[in-house]
Amino acid sequence: MTLDQTPAPRHHEPAAEPAGGEGSQVSPGKDRPADGHDPVLGLARAARRAAQALATIPADRRTGALIAIAARVRAGTPAILAANRDDLEAARAAGLSPALLDRLSLDEGRIAAMATAIAEVAAQADLIGLAVGPATRRPNGLDVARVRIPLGVVAMVYEARPNVTTDAAALCLRTGNACILRGGKEARGSNLALGAAIAAGLADAGLPADAVQIFPTTDRAALTALLLCDEDVDVVIPRGGEGLIRFVTDTSRIPVIKHYKGVCHVYVDGAADPAMALAICENAKAQRPGVCNAAETFLIDRAIAPSFLPRLGERLRAIGVEIRGDGDTVTLGGPGVRPASEDDWDTEYLDRIVSIRVVDGVAGAVQHIQRHGSHHTEAIVTADPNVAERFLATVDSSTVLWNASTRFADGGELGLGAEIGISTSKLHAYGPMGAEGLTTTKFVVRGSGQVRT
Amino acid sequence: MTLDQTPAPRHHEPAAEPAGGEGSQVSPGKDRPADGHDPVLGLARAARRAAQALATIPADRRTGALIAIAARVRAGTPAILAANRDDLEAARAAGLSPALLDRLSLDEGRIAAMATAIAEVAAQADLIGLAVGPATRRPNGLDVARVRIPLGVVAMVYEARPNVTTDAAALCLRTGNACILRGGKEARGSNLALGAAIAAGLADAGLPADAVQIFPTTDRAALTALLLCDEDVDVVIPRGGEGLIRFVTDTSRIPVIKHYKGVCHVYVDGAADPAMALAICENAKAQRPGVCNAAETFLIDRAIAPSFLPRLGERLRAIGVEIRGDGDTVTLGGPGVRPASEDDWDTEYLDRIVSIRVVDGVAGAVQHIQRHGSHHTEAIVTADPNVAERFLATVDSSTVLWNASTRFADGGELGLGAEIGISTSKLHAYGPMGAEGLTTTKFVVRGSGQVRT
Repeated sequence: MTLDQTPAPRHHEPAAEPAGGEGSQVSPGKDRPADGHDPVLGLARAARRAAQALATIPADRRTGALIAIAARVRAGTPAILAANRDDLEAARAAGLSPALLDRLSLDEGRIAAMATAIAEVAAQADLIGLAVGPATRRPNGLDVARVRIPLGVVAMVYEARPNVTTDAAALCLRTGNACILRGGKEARGSNLALGAAIAAGLADAGLPADAVQIFPTTDRAALTALLLCDEDVDVVIPRGGEGLIRFVTDTSRIPVIKHYKGVCHVYVDGAADPAMALAICENAKAQRPGVCNAAETFLIDRAIAPSFLPRLGERLRAIGVEIRGDGDTVTLGGPGVRPASEDDWDTEYLDRIVSIRVVDGVAGAVQHIQRHGSHHTEAIVTADPNVAERFLATVDSSTVLWNASTRFADGGELGLGAEIGISTSKLHAYGPMGAEGLTTTKFVVRGSGQVRT
Repeated sequence: MTLDQTPAPRHHEPAAEPAGGEGSQVSPGKDRPADGHDPVLGLARAARRAAQALATIPADRRTGALIAIAARVRAGTPAILAANRDDLEAARAAGLSPALLDRLSLDEGRIAAMATAIAEVAAQADLIGLAVGPATRRPNGLDVARVRIPLGVVAMVYEARPNVTTDAAALCLRTGNACILRGGKEARGSNLALGAAIAAGLADAGLPADAVQIFPTTDRAALTALLLCDEDVDVVIPRGGEGLIRFVTDTSRIPVIKHYKGVCHVYVDGAADPAMALAICENAKAQRPGVCNAAETFLIDRAIAPSFLPRLGERLRAIGVEIRGDGDTVTLGGPGVRPASEDDWDTEYLDRIVSIRVVDGVAGAVQHIQRHGSHHTEAIVTADPNVAERFLATVDSSTVLWNASTRFADGGELGLGAEIGISTSKLHAYGPMGAEGLTTTKFVVRGSGQVRT
């Protein structure tokens, strides 16, 4: 199939109010061309048909497919490794950074871990068809229930990590969704090999082949065409760098679940236990600096700054973290603190760099976070429960923590099971998102002939 | 303020993958110009500040504000009626249809009903700060809870009905959200008068004046500017004709909750009680044809068509409903049945017109709905519970009903209390949407110094 045609530009309605107003007869015409003329549309429609079939396939058959896929991934290890070696060779030739090569790279241990993760999703409780909240009987005798159903078709758009392919396929099948998986060009061969293993597992279990489709190209025009398929795709989840996520958000006509970045804060209150605060700051910044729930900024209560900042500076220097501070931090933080620029407060370093600012108590910390936060994760360290509860109630980030590291903002750590992504926009899912985030609810009403009067 | 400047065009990222890939340092710069240069941005930021204040204002103070607003709307009746008379005069001069004039028109009874609706929302249970699901303790001792919080800033974009102004303001305040209300140009004076009453009520209760803002212009360029304020507005809810909703969806960088149209179906199964089926068909189509949960298509099981279609045709002719049918319906439906075109199956008539098709049992009905439905509301009439449950499980519309009219797909009828809108996209809210749809949840984690290893 050819996927290189440029899609039609995004259509904007004329700037006038619709002539007929809200009560007018709506003209028909979904204007959907036949599949054969557009391979991306054909793929999206195949996913829709698979989703319609999946929605009524019982949980145990989807569980069986997950177990079969895990086995096929294990058995397919040599083929997956061979494809990955080719990807790595091309990536090295293209001069990719060591960090990216590491993300792309698979070995037997990593493939075994991917298979184990699929088996864990197979063991997760199934949510589809469960009642949400109590059923109610209306005064007219109608019985009203809300029932959990799949979203339908999920498109994942991601970059170099091949494990996203199996993680996303597994969580989508667990929740009865069909998925379209579009990884980065660096991982193209690896993803196709993983896709073959997934397809074999689906066939073993008798599930529709189109339930999991590897997008056959990494061409940007084809991605754009996919992002306009709002009739056949229910949600797009981009994962990766901010540039990719902004491209998807700006292009998509399909709803997007995403986070751009995590500028996470730790506020050290005047009533904090200094030893606990030092341990949490170090962990939040340095345990794994390249991930979104690592801290980027420490906010230090003025009341504790003279005693705490010298110790914090020493601790961070000892582990090789560069400090960019406000005036007080430059004065109190010890040698080597660089002055922070205004931009530093909005920067996700994803590196061994931290910005530090002295603030006036919890109110000052909240004010800074409201201005510079990214709605991802913020922590407070304090022994004062009143101050802590004020912080937890006022900061509207998707995860707020008291006396714990920001690094716990993770689906697995919070007990959600496997995580499909993190959302920092408040609609649908907010924060780490697991199986429940891939579902919605419908109203199911049972009557005995009721009509409305 | 001047609101007539054209906003910058929607920004599209260049078509290349971001050079740095997923691990690169993200550049700073939210690139937010100062408020003073852009009145729309200034208004959105004022809403954000009000939302930050509202989020910690206790439920009883928001209840007090709702009671005060209801009183101010009642007391402001003469001024609201005067403004509405001016709107109506201009609308008549502009040649608006009688249906639109009726939607726009207020009288003492309608204003009293608006005040009563506000008072009812004041009496609704408050959701903000409530725990969602049980709190859990992780093996490492972290206590994890999910707490209901406001979305933040809600923008409503609607057309001629002034009651949307008070309904939306009330439900947003009940849920701790600030709102920006942009009604149609026909209702501009009425909405400003209602806004003055709301502002007076907010002042009476000491709530921030910017918690409810009437958008000061109906200019389309200013609306476009508002729809790009994704830093300061959390959700846009358009209500009105399909043209307006498509404009909002295509333009907005803010998440949109919407439905384009309701092409709702009633399927009459072979095992239906014919008298019940006739009553439900008549009610679903004709009780109020101009609304989205009215039925547009009846699907008749081939098994019952020869006996049922003549009676249905007679009943519909008696109440002046035009029939457009497939070949079988033309043959069996009695005199005056026009042949349906392919477009008829996708058309929301919003009028006393219905399309009718004979299908092969519940499977044929589901197939038609999957192809032509709008994910709004579908009903089955049958005495066979197995067939009914199959229909309820397979059709993934936001509301599915058994032996009841489609007209019950309504927040009030389903027991949600006041309704802010209906969503036919599956993300966040699906179906009629009340107070809960204006909230989200955040993770609140309480620890004792935990760090991640």
